[in-house]
Amino acid sequence: MLKTIVNAAAAAAVAMTIGHAQDETPPSLTPDQERVAKRLIEQGLEDDTAWDVLTSLTTEIGPRLPGSDAEARARDWGVQKLKNLGFRNVRIETFELPYWSRVVEEARIISPFPQALTITALGQSPSTPEGGVTGAVVRFETLLDLEASDADLTDKIIFVDEGMARTQDGSGYGVAVQKRSRAAAIAAERGALGVLIRSVGTSSHRHPHTGGSVRGGASLAPAPAAALSNSDADQLARALQLSKQPVQVSLNIQSEFRQGAISGNVIGEIPGKTDEIVVVGGHLDSWDLGTGAIDDGAGVAIITAAAKLVGDLRGKPTRTIRVIMWGAEETGLHGARAYAEAHMDELDKHVFASESDFGAGRIWQFQSGFGDGAVAKAKVFQRILRPLAIGPGDNKAFGGPDVTPLRMAGVPVAGLRQSGWDYFDLHHTPDDTLDKVDPEALQQNVAAWAATIYLASEMEGDFGRLPPKEDAE
Amino acid sequence: MLKTIVNAAAAAAVAMTIGHAQDETPPSLTPDQERVAKRLIEQGLEDDTAWDVLTSLTTEIGPRLPGSDAEARARDWGVQKLKNLGFRNVRIETFELPYWSRVVEEARIISPFPQALTITALGQSPSTPEGGVTGAVVRFETLLDLEASDADLTDKIIFVDEGMARTQDGSGYGVAVQKRSRAAAIAAERGALGVLIRSVGTSSHRHPHTGGSVRGGASLAPAPAAALSNSDADQLARALQLSKQPVQVSLNIQSEFRQGAISGNVIGEIPGKTDEIVVVGGHLDSWDLGTGAIDDGAGVAIITAAAKLVGDLRGKPTRTIRVIMWGAEETGLHGARAYAEAHMDELDKHVFASESDFGAGRIWQFQSGFGDGAVAKAKVFQRILRPLAIGPGDNKAFGGPDVTPLRMAGVPVAGLRQSGWDYFDLHHTPDDTLDKVDPEALQQNVAAWAATIYLASEMEGDFGRLPPKEDAE
Repeated sequence: MLKTIVNAAAAAAVAMTIGHAQDETPPSLTPDQERVAKRLIEQGLEDDTAWDVLTSLTTEIGPRLPGSDAEARARDWGVQKLKNLGFRNVRIETFELPYWSRVVEEARIISPFPQALTITALGQSPSTPEGGVTGAVVRFETLLDLEASDADLTDKIIFVDEGMARTQDGSGYGVAVQKRSRAAAIAAERGALGVLIRSVGTSSHRHPHTGGSVRGGASLAPAPAAALSNSDADQLARALQLSKQPVQVSLNIQSEFRQGAISGNVIGEIPGKTDEIVVVGGHLDSWDLGTGAIDDGAGVAIITAAAKLVGDLRGKPTRTIRVIMWGAEETGLHGARAYAEAHMDELDKHVFASESDFGAGRIWQFQSGFGDGAVAKAKVFQRILRPLAIGPGDNKAFGGPDVTPLRMAGVPVAGLRQSGWDYFDLHHTPDDTLDKVDPEALQQNVAAWAATIYLASEMEGDFGRLPPKEDAE
Repeated sequence: MLKTIVNAAAAAAVAMTIGHAQDETPPSLTPDQERVAKRLIEQGLEDDTAWDVLTSLTTEIGPRLPGSDAEARARDWGVQKLKNLGFRNVRIETFELPYWSRVVEEARIISPFPQALTITALGQSPSTPEGGVTGAVVRFETLLDLEASDADLTDKIIFVDEGMARTQDGSGYGVAVQKRSRAAAIAAERGALGVLIRSVGTSSHRHPHTGGSVRGGASLAPAPAAALSNSDADQLARALQLSKQPVQVSLNIQSEFRQGAISGNVIGEIPGKTDEIVVVGGHLDSWDLGTGAIDDGAGVAIITAAAKLVGDLRGKPTRTIRVIMWGAEETGLHGARAYAEAHMDELDKHVFASESDFGAGRIWQFQSGFGDGAVAKAKVFQRILRPLAIGPGDNKAFGGPDVTPLRMAGVPVAGLRQSGWDYFDLHHTPDDTLDKVDPEALQQNVAAWAATIYLASEMEGDFGRLPPKEDAE
């Protein structure tokens, strides 16, 4: 009893610090629930399934561009994997999406210092005229400088040199990525031939960073756009500094774009006793440069392994645990939108949703996104996860990209926040490969997710509803 | 006086430990020489010239493949740079060499796990038939295993998966590189379609490592040969492990090869009072994947800056200091051979030779390669360099690749050994770029080389002669 009082006092102190509602008392778990949650953590820390799943996906399938044959093979792989691991109602829910892929991507300084530059086309970049375009480079230190400039950019190649801050929580990405989704539009508006951006990434290696260049991904970007590796952005900036004349660069991008390609979400379940649904997952597709190990093979592997541990418990869970290997996340959350549309009628049965999609680093924080009256329930998750060196977060969880439509529809979410310190060294680059994953960090993730999925399924009462929001896009 | 006795005792102890001749007494420097050597070190530690030279070379010229237009531009750059810095008798000594360059390099796993593999063609690799070849992969853990095997390799693709040890002194390279210079010959002997080797490098990034695949570089290699990045070698090894059937890989290499291309050594001098010559340099050419910052722009920059500091001293040096920016080192020491041939008549006037060609890391050891009766002179260099955290080495110096013909002709050499701990993360890969160079480490190099060049020029008496050797190649 004393312990409970001390814990409650500590919890209240934490809540005061981080701005949690203080007036709610966290619910108690039954002794049996306590015991099971702790055992799941122990099992997760010794789990090999996630590593095996990740090895299999990245080796046997490799890169999995949305709408590609490889993504289709990955779906078949996913169905087989979920069935073999004992999931029920395993199925693919297909949908259509526009398909984009790179065919040629080349850039060179033509004069005065002729040499190749290492680039990669941004997703949805249109092709340049065959053979490419050549123009003088105009450099802007930041996107804001480009937006504020009234320079004549007709027939120029715009170079947005803005760097990205390395942060644990990935917040540097949100700032730096704006140039990627804005630059092609500005180039078209200003009559530029194309755009080169410094990679939206922190890698000091010669790997450019791809990613969508138009929001939503339903159309081609308005101008050819590519990213330079950080080393090559340095090089181009130096060339501009050392040259006494304009620096002419050629840019040749050839890409393929067509409507009506097929993708799909792979779904497997652990059927529950009630009609309430807990949705957890990772996305199955990846960019084409790496093998999608950290983005997001790791998420698929972690969730699959964690849910399997819960599925292996005796008896049915209270709520249905629905594992989703989301399709076509990278080019515009196509799978997420398709799912929300297809399951519109049962969205009110969705009581919890979360995605693992921030690599394979250790989880350092449990963040909730629960509705009014249920916020205190986060403390139960946070208490259970504490031995994994996971701290308490606020109630502003994002929940992961693919649960966005669910969150906007009011479904409560949670964020098991992974360290992103090194994530953007690898993300969307050729360097996103299995050898970068630390198997022990993967196990810490499985442990945390197994306990989380279990609590989300078993905890008494729901997690409230979020105020519904309009899709901003 | 006491200090001298203590120093001598310490020196003797060191000599006993490392096997130096103990019976020679190191010569004394004059007070003036002591003062100048120390001042050169101070100046070197504040030197900006090396950084400026390196920035200029890597930015304005970029990659400099032996025999290419870019290498020709680099020679003109070198002439201009040496003249601007006050060197005399600046000239280009041209020679002919075979030219090789990559045009296409592609590899894919065709079945059962279709996906691209990241490779780079090895230097001197011949082309595959147009469109490439496809064959089942046969993996060998080491070169020794391949050599010992009597498996039928007809129409197979050989995969030599041997890794490389990370070492400070670069000794891991000497072991691992054997597969690069042997594999193509074995493939041809055994009727294989081609060879894939794990990169001869320690990078964990997705950068394959190029380099010559035939000794001497005068001819094409006997079979198409390419290196997989370490990540891709891991991937191919895993695919072989997970597949229940042979792993079919396609390999398409198209390369250009022609005799009679032009390269040259760029030479500048600080004329001395006597006809004795001290040769120092770095090589101007580089592989094509990076911009040749650490291999060997750094060596060129370090030596140029260090010699300039010596050249700025009042009065002529005793010996002529000859700075050589060697040409066409990478494809077979073509510049080194051409120089030895062209200067055959004055080789006996060469009293000291050394090259900086191991990147931009800090120097940790001064190693001599002096003749009988002159070995104790190394102790003077070692004493002077001690404040730079440079320790004494033995008398088995290699001296650098481009002084090999000189060393074999009896010219004494020295090795200012740089830390190679990270060198093979970058060497011969796209990652060999300026941003990897630490300007402070570059300054430590300039300081050590300035003192070394000064002592080599001014020290009383010569450094002996080495027993001449036949060229082993």
